[in-house]
Amino acid sequence: MNHTTQLLAARKGAITEQMRSVAKAEGQSAESVRERVAAGTVVIPANIGHKSLTPVGIGTGLRTKINANLGISKDCRDTEMEFDKVKAALSHGADAIMDLSSYGETAAFRRRLVSFSPVPIGTVPMYDVMGMHGKGLLLLSADDLFSTVERHIEDGIDFLTIHAGITRASVERLKERGRLTNVVSRGGSMLFAWMHARGEENPFFARYDELLELCRDKDVTLSLGDALRPGSIKDATDGLQVSELIVLGDLAERARRAGVQVMIEGPGHVAMNEIEANVVLEKRLCGGAPFYVLGPLVTDIAPGYDHITAAIGGAIAASAGADFLCYVTPAEHLRLPTADDVRDGIMASRIAAHAADIAKGLPGARDRDDAMSAARRDIDWEAMFGLALDGDKARAYRESSRPEEEDSCTMCGSLCAMKTMASVLREAAACGPGVRFADNPKRREPNKVTEGDRIAE
Amino acid sequence: MNHTTQLLAARKGAITEQMRSVAKAEGQSAESVRERVAAGTVVIPANIGHKSLTPVGIGTGLRTKINANLGISKDCRDTEMEFDKVKAALSHGADAIMDLSSYGETAAFRRRLVSFSPVPIGTVPMYDVMGMHGKGLLLLSADDLFSTVERHIEDGIDFLTIHAGITRASVERLKERGRLTNVVSRGGSMLFAWMHARGEENPFFARYDELLELCRDKDVTLSLGDALRPGSIKDATDGLQVSELIVLGDLAERARRAGVQVMIEGPGHVAMNEIEANVVLEKRLCGGAPFYVLGPLVTDIAPGYDHITAAIGGAIAASAGADFLCYVTPAEHLRLPTADDVRDGIMASRIAAHAADIAKGLPGARDRDDAMSAARRDIDWEAMFGLALDGDKARAYRESSRPEEEDSCTMCGSLCAMKTMASVLREAAACGPGVRFADNPKRREPNKVTEGDRIAE
Repeated sequence: MNHTTQLLAARKGAITEQMRSVAKAEGQSAESVRERVAAGTVVIPANIGHKSLTPVGIGTGLRTKINANLGISKDCRDTEMEFDKVKAALSHGADAIMDLSSYGETAAFRRRLVSFSPVPIGTVPMYDVMGMHGKGLLLLSADDLFSTVERHIEDGIDFLTIHAGITRASVERLKERGRLTNVVSRGGSMLFAWMHARGEENPFFARYDELLELCRDKDVTLSLGDALRPGSIKDATDGLQVSELIVLGDLAERARRAGVQVMIEGPGHVAMNEIEANVVLEKRLCGGAPFYVLGPLVTDIAPGYDHITAAIGGAIAASAGADFLCYVTPAEHLRLPTADDVRDGIMASRIAAHAADIAKGLPGARDRDDAMSAARRDIDWEAMFGLALDGDKARAYRESSRPEEEDSCTMCGSLCAMKTMASVLREAAACGPGVRFADNPKRREPNKVTEGDRIAE
Repeated sequence: MNHTTQLLAARKGAITEQMRSVAKAEGQSAESVRERVAAGTVVIPANIGHKSLTPVGIGTGLRTKINANLGISKDCRDTEMEFDKVKAALSHGADAIMDLSSYGETAAFRRRLVSFSPVPIGTVPMYDVMGMHGKGLLLLSADDLFSTVERHIEDGIDFLTIHAGITRASVERLKERGRLTNVVSRGGSMLFAWMHARGEENPFFARYDELLELCRDKDVTLSLGDALRPGSIKDATDGLQVSELIVLGDLAERARRAGVQVMIEGPGHVAMNEIEANVVLEKRLCGGAPFYVLGPLVTDIAPGYDHITAAIGGAIAASAGADFLCYVTPAEHLRLPTADDVRDGIMASRIAAHAADIAKGLPGARDRDDAMSAARRDIDWEAMFGLALDGDKARAYRESSRPEEEDSCTMCGSLCAMKTMASVLREAAACGPGVRFADNPKRREPNKVTEGDRIAE
C-alpha cells in the first residue's frame, strides 16, 4: 500500500486532517504540530482503519495525556462488564485506552472497542498470542508472534506495545547479575521465557524491519515497551533498565527513518529523586520521542493507594517532560480494577497531568484553576461543581453534609474565611478610598454590634 | 516558673528525656538530636502538662511527620463521633493531631484529647475565642484573645498556631492591591476583620514578648501561622505571602532568643514549579526553622480529590526540605471529613512523607520498600499485607476478587510476570552455571511440553 503515515506526510510539509484536528484541540497552529510530528517529538496514533477516531496528539508542547488499561481476562471474562468500564473511562476523561485482553473472545472485544472508541486504542499483542493460536507460549514460533501483531493492526489498533528491546544479551545479563524484582513486564517476561526456552533471539528485535513495515502500512504507532522496567524502587535506573533504553533509542531512530511514528515506554517504580533523570535520559537517548510512563510509583509500600503513589511520580515525570501517563488504579498489585477503581485511577492521573501542565507553563493551563478560585471566593457552588474535574463527586460530598448556613460548608461553617473577608472588604469598599476604617462612623464605637459582627455569632 | 524548655536545655548541652526518646525513635544519636534542637532546626513539641505524650521530633534530618486536623464545630457537635476520628487518626499513623474545635464544649474535648493522646496536640486558639468568651469577635479585647491562648497552654496543648505575622500594614496592602482569593486562613481572616474593625494592631504581633513568655513557661512550641498563605495557585508566592514570611522569620528569631521552640506554617495552594522555592525561602528567611505545610495543593480544580493534589505537593515540599505535612482529606473545600476521609487523608500524607524520606536519602527509609518488593517477587501475600502502609485495605482488595490460581492475583492471573520469571530462573539455576539453556536436555526439543509451558496454559 502507498498510504502515507503522519510522519511521512509531515516530513513532506503536508498538514493532514489529523494534525489540524490535534492543533485545534490544543489551541496551537497546525504548522507547529506538523513540525513536531516531522521531528518525531509528537505522535498522532491513528490507524487508518480506526474510523471512529478523534485524533489525539502526544508529545512535546501538548497537553499531557493519560491512558486507561482495560480488557477481558481469565479471571474477568464478562465482556459487558468490561465494556461498562470502557464507557466509564471515556466519560471520566481518558485520552487513550489500552485493551490488555488476554483470554476469551479477545478479537471480538478488540473490534468492538475500535468501532466504538473516539480515543486511540493500544494493545500488547503478546498478551493475545496464546489465545489466538490456541497453544502454549513456548510452542509458538516467531511467525506466530508476528501474525498476532498483524491481526491487531488489521483490526484497527492505533498503537502497539512491542518489547523489541529485550534481547538474548539482556536475558543472560539478568540471569548472571540478578535483580530484586527481576522482570515485571508481563510481555517482557513472556519474551524472556520464550528466548530462554527456545534459544532464539527476540523476533521483534531480530526482524524489526518487518515490524516497521507492518506498522507503516496502516500508520500504527510503535510504543516500544520497556521489558526491563523496574518493578521496585530498588531496581530503578539500573544497568539493565538503562541498557534497554539505549537499545530502544536505536530502534526509535530506525522507526523514524522508516516513516513509523514511535514513542517509548518508561517505568514503573522510581524514587522521586531519580524521576527527572529518567526523563532526561529518555529524551536524550531516544531523539526526543514522546515518553509514556507507567506511574512511576514513588514507594513500594502502598498497595491499595497506588493511584496516589503514581500521581506523585506521574506529576513529577510529566513536569520534567514525560508526555503520556498510564493510569494506575488503587487495585494495582492486588486485583483487576472495578469501575470505581477505574474512575479513581483516571482522576489521579488527570490531576497529575494537569498539575504538570501548569508547572510547565502550558499556555492556558491555569485558566480553569483561576476560574475555580474566583468561584470559591464568591462561594458560588454551582460554578465550582461545573469547573471541578469531577463535579459529581464534589456535589455528592457537599450534599452529604449540609451546613446550617447555606453559603458556607460544614468544614469551616460560620468561620468561613471567604465569608469573613467578603464582609470586611465590602465594608471597606463602602467607606470609599482613602477613608481609614477607624474613621468609619459605623466603627467609631468598637463595642457596638454591626454587620461585621455576624462573623462571630 | 523556672522550667527549662527543650531549646534552653539543648543550648546548655543537656540531653533531655524527650531528646533521648526522639533519638531512639529515629535511630539517631541523642547528641545529634540535641544539636539540632539547640540550633532550632528541630522542635520537640511537648507541653510539660501533657503527661501521656510520647515525644515526637519535627525538623531537619528526621522522618517527615504528618498531622491530622479534627475537632467539634457548630455543624458537627457530636463529641463521641469526633473522638472516634481521633482514634482512627492514631491507628492510621498520624504523628500529631490538631484540635480545631470551634463550637460547643471545646475545653472538655481539648482536655480529654490531651489526657488521651500519645501524640502531640496543637490548636488554633483564635477558633476558640468567641466560644470561650461568649461574645462576637469584634467585641473581644486583645486581653480576651490572650486569655484564650493562656487557657490552651494550661490545658496541656503542645503547639499553638498563632498568626502573629499579619499586621495592620498587610491589611492595608491587601485592601489596596487585592488578590484572587484574599485571605483563606480562618484565624488570619478573623484577625484581619478584628484589626480592620477595631483599628488596633494584631495583639500577637504587638505583644509578642508576652506570648513568648506564656509559651516558654510550659515549653509550648509556637507554630507561626501564615495568615496570608495563598488560597489559589494564582496567589502563591506573591508579595503578600512573602512579606509575611519575612516577618515570621524575624519573629522566629525572637522566639529562639527567648528560648521558645518555633516552627513556621506554609502554603496552601502552590503550583509544582514554585514549591521548592517556597521551601528554600522559608529555610533561608526563618533560620532553618522546621517548615509545616498545608498541602500544598498543586491544582485548584480537584475538589473531592484534594488528598491527591496535596500528596503531590507535600511529597515535593518534603523532598525539598519541608518537615511536617498537614493532611488534607478528600472532603477539603466541601465538608467536614468523615472517619473514612480521615483515613484517606492520613494515608495520602503518609505516602507523601515516606516518598520524600526515600528521595532525601533518610537512612533506612527504603528498607520496608525493599522487603515489600522481595515479598512481591516471592508472591508472599501475608508478608505483603504485613508490610503495606494499610494492610487491611490491601487484604480487602485481594479478598474481594480471588483469582483461579491462588498464587497470582486477578490483575495478571496466569500471565503473572513474577510467576513466569520464577519458573524460568528456577529452571536456569537447575541447569547449573555455564550450561546454556539451549544445551539443557529438557529443552532440546522446543516442541516438547515441559514445566515451563505452564506459563502459557
